[in-house]
Amino acid sequence: MSSDAQQPTTEAAAAPAEQVPAAATQGDSQEELNPDGTPLSDKQKRKRAEKAEKERIKAEKAERLAAEQAARQAAEVDFATENYGTLPMNQSQERTNTQLFAIEDIHPDKDGQQITLQARLQTSRAPSAKLVFLTFRQNLNCVQATLAMAPEKVSRQMTKWAAAITPESIVQVEGTISKVPKPIESSSVTVKDAEIKISRIHIVVPVTWEGQIPFYVDDATRSDAEIEASQETARPLPPIALDTRLDNRVLDLRTPTNQAIFRLNHGVCRLFREFLDNNGFIEIHTPKLQGAATESGASVFKVGYFKGNAFLAQSPQLGKQMAISADFGRVYEIGPVFRAEDSNTNRHMTEFTGLDLEMAFQEHYHEVSDLLNQLFMFIFKELPKRYGAEIATVRRQFPADDFLVPEAPVCLHFKEAIQMLRDAGYEVADLDDLSTETERALGKLVRDKYKTDFYMLDKFPLDIRPFYTMPDPSDNRYSNSYDFFMRGQEILSGAQRVHDAKYLEERLAAANIPVSAMKSYVDAFRLGAPPHAGGGIGLERVLMLYLGLNNIRRTSMFPRDPKRLEP
Amino acid sequence: MSSDAQQPTTEAAAAPAEQVPAAATQGDSQEELNPDGTPLSDKQKRKRAEKAEKERIKAEKAERLAAEQAARQAAEVDFATENYGTLPMNQSQERTNTQLFAIEDIHPDKDGQQITLQARLQTSRAPSAKLVFLTFRQNLNCVQATLAMAPEKVSRQMTKWAAAITPESIVQVEGTISKVPKPIESSSVTVKDAEIKISRIHIVVPVTWEGQIPFYVDDATRSDAEIEASQETARPLPPIALDTRLDNRVLDLRTPTNQAIFRLNHGVCRLFREFLDNNGFIEIHTPKLQGAATESGASVFKVGYFKGNAFLAQSPQLGKQMAISADFGRVYEIGPVFRAEDSNTNRHMTEFTGLDLEMAFQEHYHEVSDLLNQLFMFIFKELPKRYGAEIATVRRQFPADDFLVPEAPVCLHFKEAIQMLRDAGYEVADLDDLSTETERALGKLVRDKYKTDFYMLDKFPLDIRPFYTMPDPSDNRYSNSYDFFMRGQEILSGAQRVHDAKYLEERLAAANIPVSAMKSYVDAFRLGAPPHAGGGIGLERVLMLYLGLNNIRRTSMFPRDPKRLEP
Repeated sequence: MSSDAQQPTTEAAAAPAEQVPAAATQGDSQEELNPDGTPLSDKQKRKRAEKAEKERIKAEKAERLAAEQAARQAAEVDFATENYGTLPMNQSQERTNTQLFAIEDIHPDKDGQQITLQARLQTSRAPSAKLVFLTFRQNLNCVQATLAMAPEKVSRQMTKWAAAITPESIVQVEGTISKVPKPIESSSVTVKDAEIKISRIHIVVPVTWEGQIPFYVDDATRSDAEIEASQETARPLPPIALDTRLDNRVLDLRTPTNQAIFRLNHGVCRLFREFLDNNGFIEIHTPKLQGAATESGASVFKVGYFKGNAFLAQSPQLGKQMAISADFGRVYEIGPVFRAEDSNTNRHMTEFTGLDLEMAFQEHYHEVSDLLNQLFMFIFKELPKRYGAEIATVRRQFPADDFLVPEAPVCLHFKEAIQMLRDAGYEVADLDDLSTETERALGKLVRDKYKTDFYMLDKFPLDIRPFYTMPDPSDNRYSNSYDFFMRGQEILSGAQRVHDAKYLEERLAAANIPVSAMKSYVDAFRLGAPPHAGGGIGLERVLMLYLGLNNIRRTSMFPRDPKRLEP
Repeated sequence: MSSDAQQPTTEAAAAPAEQVPAAATQGDSQEELNPDGTPLSDKQKRKRAEKAEKERIKAEKAERLAAEQAARQAAEVDFATENYGTLPMNQSQERTNTQLFAIEDIHPDKDGQQITLQARLQTSRAPSAKLVFLTFRQNLNCVQATLAMAPEKVSRQMTKWAAAITPESIVQVEGTISKVPKPIESSSVTVKDAEIKISRIHIVVPVTWEGQIPFYVDDATRSDAEIEASQETARPLPPIALDTRLDNRVLDLRTPTNQAIFRLNHGVCRLFREFLDNNGFIEIHTPKLQGAATESGASVFKVGYFKGNAFLAQSPQLGKQMAISADFGRVYEIGPVFRAEDSNTNRHMTEFTGLDLEMAFQEHYHEVSDLLNQLFMFIFKELPKRYGAEIATVRRQFPADDFLVPEAPVCLHFKEAIQMLRDAGYEVADLDDLSTETERALGKLVRDKYKTDFYMLDKFPLDIRPFYTMPDPSDNRYSNSYDFFMRGQEILSGAQRVHDAKYLEERLAAANIPVSAMKSYVDAFRLGAPPHAGGGIGLERVLMLYLGLNNIRRTSMFPRDPKRLEP
């Protein structure tokens, strides 16, 4: 049995054949063809029919024998009833303080240790009636286990029952840690050098999904390369579309990849706050319900508000600038921002998490952009240190180049960027905004020249920035504004804001916006606001680009777009 | 002059008479009466008229002399033009890295030290043309300063100009720290034993408010007791209504009290996260835009969503429970929650900040309620340690009893609470919910008996809790649910949730809610969710009750209620 337990682990970890998930069976009903795509000849068809008939007879016989055996077994006394079964629903009946073991703590050094653990059943396979191979999962970690018939301990009924547990059930397992002679190869098993020999197994929470579950979590964790390579094998792996995943997000989020992604999501927020808390910032909470559609009215959601209307804040811009005018000096907010834009791309959502900050400065807005550079450098430095296992877990499913971070921040003047693009053959105007395409091209040029996937672009043309952007004092075709980029995509937009109410009125006039439309915004500066600058960062975009993922929905727990409001 | 500088500081810190704020002049046009309320006699009126005429003549003469003096002075050469004036608008023209000094670092030990600081001008008063007393404010701190005419340094023009600066302007001041012989008495000045002798003063940002500013920040910082006591004096302080404050929130937030309250607001969030981060929780961000009006449809805001509708989440309940079903184990969220309830009370808002958490447990929901107790004990223990100055600052304007925290958490069974109320003479039913009144009464009884302002009430009657609450396994008239209270008011409501989809359907049927209305909620549990419990905390309510404030709007930066969507 111990050699059996060391079987090729892609098999040991595979789902039992009789439990084919719904997503995997889609599109299987096409006419059979030769490998080269030509239809089968009549002879080929006849041969196949003969073979099928033989198999049918064989299967009938096997079924009869199995039924007889089952009848015999049913008559047997089950000596193991205490060792398996489904526990009653937990209603907090008692508190025994049982010590549970974590999969990540399983180690060959603990060979022979008796443990109890609660975990998801990920897969099961029963090569015989006497033996079941199972894998158990906890978050990022997965361990292999065996349940083998044993006199007075593990009955035939028990192995049969265990083999039939629906994957994704939560089970409580007792057993011993057992060192394995050579590393387990399966990509989904993370404990490579030990397994569990099971003595008791109970279902704590059953799966009550009707029919087959939408997909298996181990299938949902495969990389594109694994799926592609498997197509030539006896067991081709089913690719699982992003929409299928998002429709069944609770299941999809259980993949070690997603467990890692949302720990990293927390990690980015935690590092953002840690840096800012240590730099004298305070966290604020500005209202999402606004009385007027500030900023640009076109892309604002309207809310029924008692007998009138309200609007959902597109950003905490107004609130955080008011906090600066109210002398809070340095403020940040982590919260939802809403965009009523009918954009159906891989990098837009209607609701995302904004990491916003605003800061009064003493003399120059570069005090703020310098701090932003330090903030990002801190995040990029600490993420791999503190979340190395999570990054490695994501990389297994989504391989990507490491994110290049420079020794010192790279800041380019907009003019320099235009020159770099021209030198590389792009036709770009002096004062036009960059397109998505030229942004990406510039990202590549900067990567080649400065060996960085992260840089700041300073001094954008004034006319392409919002009216509240402070013009450059030496050349008013430009402005005191900046964007930050990761892998050639913008992740932060910010600027020195016009803090003088009278000048703000001039800028509104220049932009043909009536002052009355922005009254509460302008009023916030009439009582004297210090010079200030800030920026807004899209959390999901930062994480997507850091990890090199291809869709922003992968870094949002329950993404929202024009076509998706569920789950 | 040095004795002048030590003048009664309520005066030194007072607003100049010619700058009466708008709020203070309201209701001043009534007919004059004797102190006892009787109208003036004819003789009294004649005497007053004579006096007024004399004063008029005197004033005319003073005005003529002043005009002559002004003309003489205008002809004088101003030797101090470099030392005062308004600076050009900051457009980040240059970066000199001038070292600025913080008011909180001013100390008599530094007597004679030359410093530069930027601060708000809080008040100014010029007892003569040669001398100006000013106070400067930075957040919680306020310092007194003097500007005195001096040959070749401070000209008459300079003192005159400085005396006329509008309060709330941001100024840059150069001067020397000067020890004072006896502590400054003014309640608004926090630096008690030193002041600044000014040599240069420039306006960095002027106030451009049209007309008088709505109120003075020092007036807005007075306690009710100070205001009341002042009514018998020559300079009665104006009370400033909460609505006036909220209408001009940017100004109101500049009071040291509010600077402290919102630092404490950050403090509560920070301690909440610190405790949970250290206990294996991860932070999540669940969508506020929902496809269906989950929980209770009646109090949900409806949002236009492209061609259809969406609804604003009343709480992250669904999202955080899905995260538990998705194996994240322990999750929390800090974010806005929305309640479309037309409640106009001092403790309800339509948008507030929810501190939500949810946790899978091993055996018993008391694992979760124990952790919640520890969380609050941590917050209450650390707040006074880390934010002592802020708490003291709030107490000066809003005196309150210290918040009593027990040695060990106090947890009462609902039955015990009912008995305590009955013993105290209240008529309460076994299984009815507590009213606001009985909650407060119970808070007092618990305070008397257990010496605590914080406690947990466990095992609420099942019928008064939401359908997803797990019944008590030993008596299904009760449930595995709890509330936490501060000063007799509920600040957290939570429970073990029904994690079994089939049982959840039974509970929905018992509550007469069609399963179809809660489909996505129930579906989240069909793939097996671990037993779990959690709770939701209102941030603003915790802070209001900790500080003993009387209105929840005081702990929300920009509060929203049925009648307020601005600023």
